Amino acid sequence: MRHWIVKDMPVTPPTLVDIEAARLRISAHARLTPVLRDEALDAEIGARLYFKCENLQRIGAFKFRGACNAVFALDDGIATRGVLTHSSGNHGAALAAAAALRGIPAHVVVPENANAQKLRNIVAAGATVHRCAPNLTAREALCAELQRTTGARLVHPYTDPLVMAGQGTAALELLDQVNGIDSFIAPVGGGGLMSGCAIALRSRSPHTTLIGAEPIGADDAQRSLAAGKVVSIEHPNSICDGLLATIGAVNYGVLARHRVEVLSVDDSAVRSAMRRLWERLKLIVEPSSAIAYAVLQAHSERFRGQRVGVLLSGGNVDLDALPF
Amino acid sequence: MRHWIVKDMPVTPPTLVDIEAARLRISAHARLTPVLRDEALDAEIGARLYFKCENLQRIGAFKFRGACNAVFALDDGIATRGVLTHSSGNHGAALAAAAALRGIPAHVVVPENANAQKLRNIVAAGATVHRCAPNLTAREALCAELQRTTGARLVHPYTDPLVMAGQGTAALELLDQVNGIDSFIAPVGGGGLMSGCAIALRSRSPHTTLIGAEPIGADDAQRSLAAGKVVSIEHPNSICDGLLATIGAVNYGVLARHRVEVLSVDDSAVRSAMRRLWERLKLIVEPSSAIAYAVLQAHSERFRGQRVGVLLSGGNVDLDALPF
Repeated sequence: MRHWIVKDMPVTPPTLVDIEAARLRISAHARLTPVLRDEALDAEIGARLYFKCENLQRIGAFKFRGACNAVFALDDGIATRGVLTHSSGNHGAALAAAAALRGIPAHVVVPENANAQKLRNIVAAGATVHRCAPNLTAREALCAELQRTTGARLVHPYTDPLVMAGQGTAALELLDQVNGIDSFIAPVGGGGLMSGCAIALRSRSPHTTLIGAEPIGADDAQRSLAAGKVVSIEHPNSICDGLLATIGAVNYGVLARHRVEVLSVDDSAVRSAMRRLWERLKLIVEPSSAIAYAVLQAHSERFRGQRVGVLLSGGNVDLDALPF
Repeated sequence: MRHWIVKDMPVTPPTLVDIEAARLRISAHARLTPVLRDEALDAEIGARLYFKCENLQRIGAFKFRGACNAVFALDDGIATRGVLTHSSGNHGAALAAAAALRGIPAHVVVPENANAQKLRNIVAAGATVHRCAPNLTAREALCAELQRTTGARLVHPYTDPLVMAGQGTAALELLDQVNGIDSFIAPVGGGGLMSGCAIALRSRSPHTTLIGAEPIGADDAQRSLAAGKVVSIEHPNSICDGLLATIGAVNYGVLARHRVEVLSVDDSAVRSAMRRLWERLKLIVEPSSAIAYAVLQAHSERFRGQRVGVLLSGGNVDLDALPF
């Protein structure tokens, strides 16, 4: 059996056909999330905003789309050996939930210092959790060992083409739900969501301006696009805990090719945008999602009069911090 | 000009035709709110739950439906004099927002001890706020005086038939969105929402069991149905601040005639249900809404295997209490 280790292999990004196939494949499991609007937020930006609510997706984040596509695309023979990933966040829970739906094992490698709440989510979704020391070497060694011993298929959180294709289905849905999008904005972490959506939008709505939103403390995608190659940041730091990863090489390539522009804001702008979204939309969005609205606030002049698709990526906030 | 003072007049409840007319009348202004589902909550209750999200309605509550219907049903000649109500909560903001859309004045009588945040909402929606001493006599005197001096039409928060008809449109929408509802549950305060929905459901889905949810500290509707007449509670007390009003006579009549059963839970059950809904649905719902899920939790055996419509009535929570 060949072990598919992403980091050592050149990866070909998905095409529109792959994204359309993903949409069909996940349609029985993923939610068709609503698009919400709010007059007061429209007035604040001077644009018509269409919020695509992936915080209302299964497991509370868009990540379910990609994980579900990867899990259900496996041949039966391979699938029975299960799937494997490393994640301390939404991708781990998403892969576990998708594997449970297919009835196959899921192994999730989690660093020893991972957030206890997120760990509980992964366990609750039915995965076997494997702890490792919180460094890249330990993580890769454990992943390789688990691939050897279990035969499980590695599903990378953002460089896997099936994952990228799954994330792109959110943009295809949005295009069916809203008639004409001038600009589209989504957060950028590893770049799985933005690259999948960029491929879908460039094919189906070529005039749409594509904007990525990134925290200033983890602006590797913006720097990479400026440098013309992947640049990583030594110590990324932001309350946007879903956006700290360095952009994947394949994801960077898609963003560069499809002319995605990345704009960054600081954490205090994210905090105030999050508060505003909770207040007006009555939705729980996590900081890594609210950043898209923070960028709209900081650059409202660029969006004046436009129809703007805003991808709210997730809502997994630690409610223990709330007063009830 | 005749002044229409509800408390002195017998009121005829609306019919299905009135509710259908309301739906048409408000369709350009009110939002068609989504119905959300969650597998974990389904499993918890052992039923299929369909959450009708009126917290995502304009002004963050179902109240916009009734206020909008009342405002847009007025003849032009009467409308120009404006509308008037007494409310320290969502109805005041809803009436103000509807009046602003029609371009007519809104007067809202608010007790001096009203919550500052809710007051700001009413002012932000464009109403003229009139303060009065926090008692019934002062309120009615000021309302009567304002009717005399402005000629504004009084729109009662729950006994006005146009308001009841507007609230009933939420149930009509739900029936179009979900195929077959075995039970329907909604909170009961003054009874405007439950009575409007009961009329709609009894006509269009006669087999549906109708359940009202009420806080134990303000269980006047439950006591009224048991006593066979309206019973009021001296000092209602609950965190469900939208459910403290005594049920209106016309609303009581509808609940009794249409065999609505009211179940009650205590505030601690409401608090824990609210937490659960925030966590799973990623929606901000206020205590007065979360009570419906608290009743489902407390009486889950009654709903086993059913398809249950759950009306989430509003999401206007004071975010200043949150840690950001």
